[in-house]
Amino acid sequence: MTNREHHNKEYNNEYSNDKFQRAALQVTEAQGRLMPYAALLAQEAVPLHLSSGRYLAQSVAAPHPYPAFDRSSMDGFAVIAADTLAAGAPDTVWLEVIDVIPCGAVASREITAGTAARIMTGAQIPGGADTVIMMEATESRIEGGVTYVGISKPQERGLHITPCGLELSTGDPVLPEGALIGAGEIAVLAALGVPEVPVRRRPKVAVFATGTELLEVDEPLVPGKIRNSNSPMLEALIREAGGEPVMLGAIIDDLELARSKVQMALESYDLVITTGGVSVGDYDIMGDLVREQSGEMLFNKIAMRPGSVTTAAVRGGSILLALSGNPGACFVGFQLFARPVIGLMQGAAQPYLPEWTAVLGEDYKRVNSFTRYVRARLEIRQAVLYAYPAAVDESSVTVTIKDSDCLIVIPPDSGQLSAGDKVTVLKLPGEIRG
Amino acid sequence: MTNREHHNKEYNNEYSNDKFQRAALQVTEAQGRLMPYAALLAQEAVPLHLSSGRYLAQSVAAPHPYPAFDRSSMDGFAVIAADTLAAGAPDTVWLEVIDVIPCGAVASREITAGTAARIMTGAQIPGGADTVIMMEATESRIEGGVTYVGISKPQERGLHITPCGLELSTGDPVLPEGALIGAGEIAVLAALGVPEVPVRRRPKVAVFATGTELLEVDEPLVPGKIRNSNSPMLEALIREAGGEPVMLGAIIDDLELARSKVQMALESYDLVITTGGVSVGDYDIMGDLVREQSGEMLFNKIAMRPGSVTTAAVRGGSILLALSGNPGACFVGFQLFARPVIGLMQGAAQPYLPEWTAVLGEDYKRVNSFTRYVRARLEIRQAVLYAYPAAVDESSVTVTIKDSDCLIVIPPDSGQLSAGDKVTVLKLPGEIRG
Repeated sequence: MTNREHHNKEYNNEYSNDKFQRAALQVTEAQGRLMPYAALLAQEAVPLHLSSGRYLAQSVAAPHPYPAFDRSSMDGFAVIAADTLAAGAPDTVWLEVIDVIPCGAVASREITAGTAARIMTGAQIPGGADTVIMMEATESRIEGGVTYVGISKPQERGLHITPCGLELSTGDPVLPEGALIGAGEIAVLAALGVPEVPVRRRPKVAVFATGTELLEVDEPLVPGKIRNSNSPMLEALIREAGGEPVMLGAIIDDLELARSKVQMALESYDLVITTGGVSVGDYDIMGDLVREQSGEMLFNKIAMRPGSVTTAAVRGGSILLALSGNPGACFVGFQLFARPVIGLMQGAAQPYLPEWTAVLGEDYKRVNSFTRYVRARLEIRQAVLYAYPAAVDESSVTVTIKDSDCLIVIPPDSGQLSAGDKVTVLKLPGEIRG
Repeated sequence: MTNREHHNKEYNNEYSNDKFQRAALQVTEAQGRLMPYAALLAQEAVPLHLSSGRYLAQSVAAPHPYPAFDRSSMDGFAVIAADTLAAGAPDTVWLEVIDVIPCGAVASREITAGTAARIMTGAQIPGGADTVIMMEATESRIEGGVTYVGISKPQERGLHITPCGLELSTGDPVLPEGALIGAGEIAVLAALGVPEVPVRRRPKVAVFATGTELLEVDEPLVPGKIRNSNSPMLEALIREAGGEPVMLGAIIDDLELARSKVQMALESYDLVITTGGVSVGDYDIMGDLVREQSGEMLFNKIAMRPGSVTTAAVRGGSILLALSGNPGACFVGFQLFARPVIGLMQGAAQPYLPEWTAVLGEDYKRVNSFTRYVRARLEIRQAVLYAYPAAVDESSVTVTIKDSDCLIVIPPDSGQLSAGDKVTVLKLPGEIRG
């Protein structure tokens, strides 16, 4: 049987199968069915300096106060404030400089009445001193080999001292489990002496594309075919979400072959994502595969546009997520379903896209019986967040993905929306461009 | 001479040097002096699927229309709209199905009056057809081995066809030079057949910490010393900015050694960053180094808090950027100066932090004669952007860096600010948490 005869046969049979009988779930329902299977992966330790982009597997509390000692916040002189009370009335008070305390050193002598120590920014305050007077506010005099510091104004007690524990007391919570680690987290973990960070292993995410219409990126166009843009896009999205993409190429429309490839991937990787082959009337290879195999179908229709055909199944505890082959729908399906799965496997505290209210920047007239997730561009002007829907937002559209900072959520009952209306947006990863 | 004697000697000399005579530049002036030296690095080609996070070195225009052909956006039947005009008045119109066009294939026959082709989502529209009627709106009948499709309503011409060139015509600009490449850019580059992407080489950024007070992250605390949190923080910040960090460890307070190490680094790497050793009255090793060596000092004082001591010099065309040793000041100095340098070297179209207006979430009472860059947390509520200054914002503070989404810019003449006032914020890289 040729491919076309096979297709003809399928087409003649398809009125009798269940492809039109899918029950549409709401997005949150579908997420609710899927996420319990996003099992937390094993812990591993990574060197602190390489931990950026990982999620903390255990909360961190301060093992000691921070700063760990009273510290000078100025270059100047550590003194006893009481010694300066008489300064400038009208005479300069002169204190004997008995020590020099560089940063990182400790005082060699205690400060007593009438004495002072030269001290550098960041150095530990010597015993006895309770104040630092800044360099620029002093004068100096050397007499008989002894240095004296002159002070012309009374000093407030405690001035220019950063007290021990200002930022953290012992036991203070510093970072919660599930926190995303960035430069700021690394700084505080370094300060507290955490050279290795407990994180969850990165999920290995296998990706298949389906469809005989697909050309590789480096192939010339031929009539009727398109280049596979979903696989490289998914590879980048998986990395961005913290996963390790494992690109397994294209599955052609051969159910037997697809079945064995997907089964092998489900046994070897933490998550299997396919793109294409899920549409009604499509050759629907993923749908067939999910129906025919043992395992649990979680959903195969979602009340959303684009991506209503997004399908998920669980087999042997592993998740198979079948995204639409339409680039826009594939992108939205990834952000709503794959991204939180990949986040949860790493223990992310906030695996979902942030949800904000924005002001619609221009009218939006498209209504649908399903909730619409419209790619849009955010702009902040005069402290107000605006969302501008992409001009062309067909599920097949590829070009607008790059210009989108968010998805505007348009509920089915919204009717036509006008510029100035408040809308809910889901913030996509990355910087706001506007 | 012991270290302490050396320090004593330095201290006795320091009133006569120029450390107090620094001329403070405004941040934008300082940036203006520095950025011309951020030389564009060489182009290289990276495989498309690994190009995320890089900056496009050449603009990209569409080499062909996209989509490249009229495409069905539905599973259904390709028909001639005129053939359906009589449908439902009152009879069903029956058309002979003469072809089946899977996705990726081309039609074997032209559609003529009275005929139709079964067509899949994404497949190329056959010659002669001008409309697709969706599967669900049809019925079918087989008679004498011939399949007929029944249509009960007139169809609008052009329906369910995504026309060739809908997204892009040949020559349309797609991506400008300097665009940051992410998943969406990768998708469109894949669709247009760009397997290798021209980008700029990543800058190699050498980092030295200075200061005898520094312990490594894995060392136990000892009195007077602190762990080096700036180096691992800078390593993460450099990666985040697209650079390749080269961590060269700590320089102790030895001018000769520092000089040779820094000189070697300037000859070997694209940018040298140091942290610490720039304060007035500090041992100021970086300042000394910059003064004593041949080369051009760009600035050594900036009218900003924190980080007023931020220093930059150019030697042999290479930039030496000496950041404060205070973690908060080091962080701010990096974001205002190092980050744009690293971005410009890669050809980034937007190397600076985005500048937004926000509503101050609570009163801010600290005034300063210099512009203050206050670490703050952003929140979006009811489409309004609020900025909440960190409770403790000393330049030495490490803990609040991780909780900051932005820097509030407080000009010196602001006076005391109240909740509800509009302020300028510089958005820091990463997601808004609130």
